[in-house]
Amino acid sequence: MYLMTVVISNTKVAEIPGISAAGKSTELIKYTPPADIEYIFYGKPKCIDAIPVTPEGHPTPAIITKAAKEIMNFPLIPIRAGSILPPRTPHIYASSTPGGDIRFEDGSPEHEKLLEDGIILGKELRKFDLVIGESIPGGTTTALAVLRSLGYDAHTSSAFKDNPVSLKEKVVNMALKRGKSVKCCGDPMISFVAGMVIGHGNAILGGGTQMLAVAAIAKEEGYKPKLIATTKYIANDKSANFKEIAEEIGVDYYISQIDLSKSKYKGLREYEIGYVKEGVGAGGALYMAEKSGIKLEDIEKKIEELYGRLIE
Amino acid sequence: MYLMTVVISNTKVAEIPGISAAGKSTELIKYTPPADIEYIFYGKPKCIDAIPVTPEGHPTPAIITKAAKEIMNFPLIPIRAGSILPPRTPHIYASSTPGGDIRFEDGSPEHEKLLEDGIILGKELRKFDLVIGESIPGGTTTALAVLRSLGYDAHTSSAFKDNPVSLKEKVVNMALKRGKSVKCCGDPMISFVAGMVIGHGNAILGGGTQMLAVAAIAKEEGYKPKLIATTKYIANDKSANFKEIAEEIGVDYYISQIDLSKSKYKGLREYEIGYVKEGVGAGGALYMAEKSGIKLEDIEKKIEELYGRLIE
Repeated sequence: MYLMTVVISNTKVAEIPGISAAGKSTELIKYTPPADIEYIFYGKPKCIDAIPVTPEGHPTPAIITKAAKEIMNFPLIPIRAGSILPPRTPHIYASSTPGGDIRFEDGSPEHEKLLEDGIILGKELRKFDLVIGESIPGGTTTALAVLRSLGYDAHTSSAFKDNPVSLKEKVVNMALKRGKSVKCCGDPMISFVAGMVIGHGNAILGGGTQMLAVAAIAKEEGYKPKLIATTKYIANDKSANFKEIAEEIGVDYYISQIDLSKSKYKGLREYEIGYVKEGVGAGGALYMAEKSGIKLEDIEKKIEELYGRLIE
Repeated sequence: MYLMTVVISNTKVAEIPGISAAGKSTELIKYTPPADIEYIFYGKPKCIDAIPVTPEGHPTPAIITKAAKEIMNFPLIPIRAGSILPPRTPHIYASSTPGGDIRFEDGSPEHEKLLEDGIILGKELRKFDLVIGESIPGGTTTALAVLRSLGYDAHTSSAFKDNPVSLKEKVVNMALKRGKSVKCCGDPMISFVAGMVIGHGNAILGGGTQMLAVAAIAKEEGYKPKLIATTKYIANDKSANFKEIAEEIGVDYYISQIDLSKSKYKGLREYEIGYVKEGVGAGGALYMAEKSGIKLEDIEKKIEELYGRLIE
């Protein structure tokens, strides 16, 4: 039986101007993780007035997760692992300590504790088909740092259409000069979810290049997720190399061929040209839905309906 | 598929001398809820050195829950709903605000929010066979107040062999003079679990007379649990009237015939003469185990083994 969890977190990396598109402005980015959860549960966030959008106004991928959830009604439990704010829903508490700016300080200061607690929770949930998503602004940069620290020639995606590659490289290089551990270069989401993968033994990671970092860390400990489920937007991203690194790690993947090109809304249609791409477990939710026999067409219709409700 | 949750909470009622046996002393009682959880997860508490015992040294009923869990390996998620301390495990966060002393102040000051969040969580967990236990010192007194406020001629059990009936009556009467709502007379566990029962629609309550108060509140809103699962120690308690009130509320019940009379340990054997009786979801854990075809004999053996490990 499926159980979805979405791990929310923050680091100061997201405060570096131009690095994260997980919010309308750098100011608002810190609200994005709880707002994503609240949107899924209540149809609108409680911690802030509007749903998270990119600086150009594209809606959060939580809309994909919510569409799949409304159709197939899978249980979802949010997990707070270092988000600045709690979601205003019942949620699993792991930590309220956000990560630092990896240029100057630890990205996952409580790495050991989070890994250990993630293992405990993953073990506890072994009987379920566990799907794990994430919402952590700036997370592709910390993921890049973690993958590079392990020697992978990785390139991670971005919620920006134009991946701020040189900025990310600069931040990562500064972090790697400080050290090569997850504590140093990673983020609390990576620490906790790596623990869950280890404890569970067969977890499904819903996400893109960030989940490669999780899988790579789990692999260092001798464990693997069942697979990483993501969207075609990640797999087709030429500024990243999802499939290549997944194969190098030796982790299976599933690519959902979701198609928003026929939407009447520009905000959704532009997912097709590279905005947003993935997040909040979107790929994992699509995987569950498709495996349960739900047609992508129906999910696409539901996304259209949910977006209509949002902008009215 | 079974999913067990244990809701932990505190109120200042437990600080009234002589009212609660959920700890060696009034000082130590506040550690009991998280210590119960930590004992189940780690084999010993982390927030304090020793496992919770009654003033006379009888071990926490968490030992029954742990025995069933070790044999059948059901998933257990702790829920913090107003406990003073968090358990040092991943857990669902609902509230960190304990209740007051119902003689003078509200027992469940955040009742509305807890009920609402309980409903949200209960709904989310609808696909599971949800079993809910509790650990809240002083909880039989607040349960008594809630049942009386609704007009039931209830008598609740106690973890003491000799139920401090007249003290409980005095506290309850003072509370009822202040008001007749759950917020006034109840406790955070009752508020949250009543919400879970409403949201889930078919939850199994693992516990004794405290769960009658939960069922009675849910009934006021038009909902019922599937049943209340408890131990024969509660059903046989002549200072209480579990079956009578369950029938009056119209809620089904299951009585586990667990037998610790042959234990070589006095601490366990004396469960048979009325010490401890129930708690930490013991009845619910026994229900799950028995329904899954596990023999009581095997659970009793496991309890013996666990207690042996504790006192060595």
